[in-house]
Amino acid sequence: MKFTKMHGLGNDFILLNCLGGTVDNPSQLAQEMCDRNFGIGADGLVLVLPSEIEEADFRMRIFNPDGSEPEMCGNAIRCFAKYLYERDLTTKTNLNVETLAGIIKPKLILEDGAVKLVKVDMGQPRLKRSEIPMKGEESEEVVKEPVEVAGEKFEVTCVSMGNPHCVIFVDDADEAPVRELGPKIETHDLFPEDINVEFIEVVNEEELEMRVWERGAGVTLACGTGACGSTVAAILNDLTKQKVTVHLLGGDLVIEWADDDHVYMSGPATEVFTGDYLN
Amino acid sequence: MKFTKMHGLGNDFILLNCLGGTVDNPSQLAQEMCDRNFGIGADGLVLVLPSEIEEADFRMRIFNPDGSEPEMCGNAIRCFAKYLYERDLTTKTNLNVETLAGIIKPKLILEDGAVKLVKVDMGQPRLKRSEIPMKGEESEEVVKEPVEVAGEKFEVTCVSMGNPHCVIFVDDADEAPVRELGPKIETHDLFPEDINVEFIEVVNEEELEMRVWERGAGVTLACGTGACGSTVAAILNDLTKQKVTVHLLGGDLVIEWADDDHVYMSGPATEVFTGDYLN
Repeated sequence: MKFTKMHGLGNDFILLNCLGGTVDNPSQLAQEMCDRNFGIGADGLVLVLPSEIEEADFRMRIFNPDGSEPEMCGNAIRCFAKYLYERDLTTKTNLNVETLAGIIKPKLILEDGAVKLVKVDMGQPRLKRSEIPMKGEESEEVVKEPVEVAGEKFEVTCVSMGNPHCVIFVDDADEAPVRELGPKIETHDLFPEDINVEFIEVVNEEELEMRVWERGAGVTLACGTGACGSTVAAILNDLTKQKVTVHLLGGDLVIEWADDDHVYMSGPATEVFTGDYLN
Repeated sequence: MKFTKMHGLGNDFILLNCLGGTVDNPSQLAQEMCDRNFGIGADGLVLVLPSEIEEADFRMRIFNPDGSEPEMCGNAIRCFAKYLYERDLTTKTNLNVETLAGIIKPKLILEDGAVKLVKVDMGQPRLKRSEIPMKGEESEEVVKEPVEVAGEKFEVTCVSMGNPHCVIFVDDADEAPVRELGPKIETHDLFPEDINVEFIEVVNEEELEMRVWERGAGVTLACGTGACGSTVAAILNDLTKQKVTVHLLGGDLVIEWADDDHVYMSGPATEVFTGDYLN
């Protein structure tokens, strides 16, 4: 089975061209292929599919290493868009991609005919408690809400970017207890669909330092929707301007929560190798 | 650059066919390629080379993810032998392979023309203190020697299988402090060339359970020379028979310290995918 391996800031994906027909049991295949010793190894399996929705050009499905299917992934969609353009599967530089989080609109920024960066309209953040979703009495926003985890109290700000994010501001992102608290917050009773967890250090009003625990995947080098959700959370807390650079372990993303209420993310995507999987 | 990805019990390797010419700076290439997010991802890079030694058919060089070059790797050589046979690069089922640990002799065990198992003559263990190498007054063997690590005392049995191994017997391999003590023992002052560390539970006189910290690679799912060294150590301590099954996280190996003083290791090798690396 032919595949392509790409990464966005080290958040790495196996892409399968399913335009001619999809694969059987992608959840099982993701568990096999994403295994880093017995399989190909990746943070996710991405299916490149045709869309049956008129306003969409393509459809992206993504599966985590544990076989679960997240709504969307900001790093994966940059890889997805670059793949389509550089494989001559589209000539458009503005794409409409169907995902479980709705239509996502990546824009290719070219340099000498190659894709230099991909800017993605990540849509409007959803702030209502029921939209995140989070248990408790309905509220317009979840900002600085006290939550108890493993006997300690934290203030969380929660945002949905199509998938749910729980943001905790810390003094030092490098020292944040990501592996210890991440899985406990991910599966906390407050979050009926579990949640991604971001630990954010505000460097200044134009820069954030982020460490992330991804739902179903654990610690990763970068999470695009997490960078978006964290920027929205920082702005809701009056900590930054509308446009910030988010420093992740795998590199930088520029995130803007613009006047049209949409969140725009710009970042790179890199193809590493193509392969032929034997099983 | 074309490559093949294989594993022996989950200990995974990138193989490069260098029979027509070697690569520049393999140490640097290993660091790039072995990276699991930005590269291909592997426990090691294996170069398939011609040998200039008359009694050898091929030469194997292996590089760790940190760029260092170990003398030999028991899981890698099974992959190496299977690769040569199944690529029609040899018709021999008994190979002589030049390594930094001397000539290693893998034997292919076929089933329906495919390689089912590879049995490797891993040579004679070297038991003398200076051969391991280990500091201190010369002795014929290093058995049950007290060593202090991080304030705690352990009894170690040390064996060289071409590369050095420090074996510690424990009551429960699953509970062994591999990540905590492994790196401290690896770089202990006693071992001038550093050392691989095995935590061994004796299940019965024909079975061992093993957890390993590999020099330069950290925790891996399996280590072939480690299974050999551990079996020799168990026999030196009168804990097992001459032929044992060693259970590793990645699967089983059968190890025999035979009457000819040679150690024989039998186990599987699996090809997972072929690829073309872009950088």
